[in-house]
Amino acid sequence: MNLNIIPVKWSDEGVLMLDQRLLPTEEKWLTLKTYNDVAAGIKDMVVRGAPAIGVSAAYGIALGANSFVGTNVDDLEEEVEYIGDVLAATRPTAVNLFWAIDRMKAKFQHEKGNGRSVSELKALLIEEAKAIHDEDIESQRLIAQFGGELLNDHDTVLTHCNAGALATGGVWGTALGVIRGAVDQGKHVAVIADETRPYLQGARLTAWELMQDDIPVTLITDNMSGHVMKKGRVQAVVVGSDRIAANGDVANKIGTYMVAVLAKRHGIPFYVAAPLSTVDLNTATGDDIPIEERDIREVTHVKDIQLAPDEATVSNYAFDVTPNDLVTAIITEKGVARAPYIESLKKQFEA
Amino acid sequence: MNLNIIPVKWSDEGVLMLDQRLLPTEEKWLTLKTYNDVAAGIKDMVVRGAPAIGVSAAYGIALGANSFVGTNVDDLEEEVEYIGDVLAATRPTAVNLFWAIDRMKAKFQHEKGNGRSVSELKALLIEEAKAIHDEDIESQRLIAQFGGELLNDHDTVLTHCNAGALATGGVWGTALGVIRGAVDQGKHVAVIADETRPYLQGARLTAWELMQDDIPVTLITDNMSGHVMKKGRVQAVVVGSDRIAANGDVANKIGTYMVAVLAKRHGIPFYVAAPLSTVDLNTATGDDIPIEERDIREVTHVKDIQLAPDEATVSNYAFDVTPNDLVTAIITEKGVARAPYIESLKKQFEA
Repeated sequence: MNLNIIPVKWSDEGVLMLDQRLLPTEEKWLTLKTYNDVAAGIKDMVVRGAPAIGVSAAYGIALGANSFVGTNVDDLEEEVEYIGDVLAATRPTAVNLFWAIDRMKAKFQHEKGNGRSVSELKALLIEEAKAIHDEDIESQRLIAQFGGELLNDHDTVLTHCNAGALATGGVWGTALGVIRGAVDQGKHVAVIADETRPYLQGARLTAWELMQDDIPVTLITDNMSGHVMKKGRVQAVVVGSDRIAANGDVANKIGTYMVAVLAKRHGIPFYVAAPLSTVDLNTATGDDIPIEERDIREVTHVKDIQLAPDEATVSNYAFDVTPNDLVTAIITEKGVARAPYIESLKKQFEA
Repeated sequence: MNLNIIPVKWSDEGVLMLDQRLLPTEEKWLTLKTYNDVAAGIKDMVVRGAPAIGVSAAYGIALGANSFVGTNVDDLEEEVEYIGDVLAATRPTAVNLFWAIDRMKAKFQHEKGNGRSVSELKALLIEEAKAIHDEDIESQRLIAQFGGELLNDHDTVLTHCNAGALATGGVWGTALGVIRGAVDQGKHVAVIADETRPYLQGARLTAWELMQDDIPVTLITDNMSGHVMKKGRVQAVVVGSDRIAANGDVANKIGTYMVAVLAKRHGIPFYVAAPLSTVDLNTATGDDIPIEERDIREVTHVKDIQLAPDEATVSNYAFDVTPNDLVTAIITEKGVARAPYIESLKKQFEA
């Protein structure tokens, strides 16, 4: 393993983002110089994945504050609030986005209360965003360690979408972190990756990412996961999450629910790997999680190639909710939570 | 409804096939002048769908026999056997292919036994192929009638792949025949069509075909069918089949099994519509049905656009098997069969 994929970085020129829309055929970095660029980067999916969105939003606030012209702390406060609103409006489902914005605002309030100047506050916000990034990577390292222990030597693991280094602050990833953790522990693990229509994160990102780290991966279409389970090819399912409700219901990429139902039928453990910043104790159940619907062109076209008739009616839900009874365990940086999640997740926050 | 889609036709110039690879953006007819062209048309999926493959193979034999140069009946017999072998080698899963070839060969044997000349045999084979085609359309009309009665006014029906007029000899279709039957009976029925990766028969063909007949259709990716069921948007699932085993296990387009498992979880009836020529009493269970694996380029590319990394490992199963316990009913031209299928299907053959 190389363990060297970091999709978002801070630099003096702005926020650097690996343009994930171009993978796997092109590796191009963008330099985003304004918070509006960062918001557009999140909305247009230059970067995607709940933890990566959180890190990016934190950098977006730091970037926007750093561009503030003036010396009045109250004016900067207003600006930070406004930037937070712009970033919060990019995507509705991943709670890490709101978590990171809230943490940056709380940091601002705390340091404002300490009587900091505008230039001090700018520096402290950059520092806080970097801390969020560093902590995210450290969380993944721990998720990899805890989750890796759940896999057995010679397991084949099915994963859906990309919950890898590319979907996070980098290095390990969440679901792919669990796989990397098992490999790091000396186990031989192979992966089956669902391509994940319509946006093809599995084909474009997961396959690419695992090939970078020399982990064997077989790509299938989303239609094939039931069949490969039926053939006995899958020993565990590991996915990431965009938001986990207090009761352990899991919002994740559309199609995850189908995989979970199939795993249950075949007696295959279904693991969810996510940092605690993805767990939202203020969301009681999955029914309360807003599900983003995206542009239907993602379904009707691949680049300029038209797949469906002109004027076809299309639904394009980006996420679904897997109820907690289908979830074998939730792996966070605090350890492995099991049902009843209403208690085990709460306990992790208190630990 | 227009009820005017017939994807395969006999003509004096050869077999006419609507090139389904180009739909929905282009409607182009090919004229296939040799049995090798017909075999290539089946293999390359100019035409697809079990009943349509059967009709095409019958025409292929008629076409090949008609091109025979000679007057010796034994030589023609050898040629017909050879043509049958070439056509049989095109695709392994759809049993209608082998059924149609066997029926054409049986007709030849029977008429040879009657002392027919080469020119008489040629004409009789053309007549037999046309009869197979006519009977296929009539079977669908009956399937539409029987199946339509199972749907309720204002139902939304989810379907997978294309089991429409395009997948058959034409006009009604099997799964889409059931939907057309309900509409014909005055019911308001809407359809949700899975796009059906990798070959996108749902997006390209089912959406197009239903729009031709003004039946409301919403396209989704395969990942979304569980989510729309969970939201209560689906009242019935209807699919076609490529081969039904004697015990009622159903081979159909990859992903059908996942839809069936999800339908079971949500208490949604799961119907299979197919002519008896799809039922293979010589195949005891689904485990005995060969599952075609196709070129991985279907998964890694859409036309010239590369979706996956170079040298990615890919599995491309074209079909899966849905076990009989997930099947609410099987609708054929003889009526509605229910479990235990080992008895009800046998009874339909005897009826």
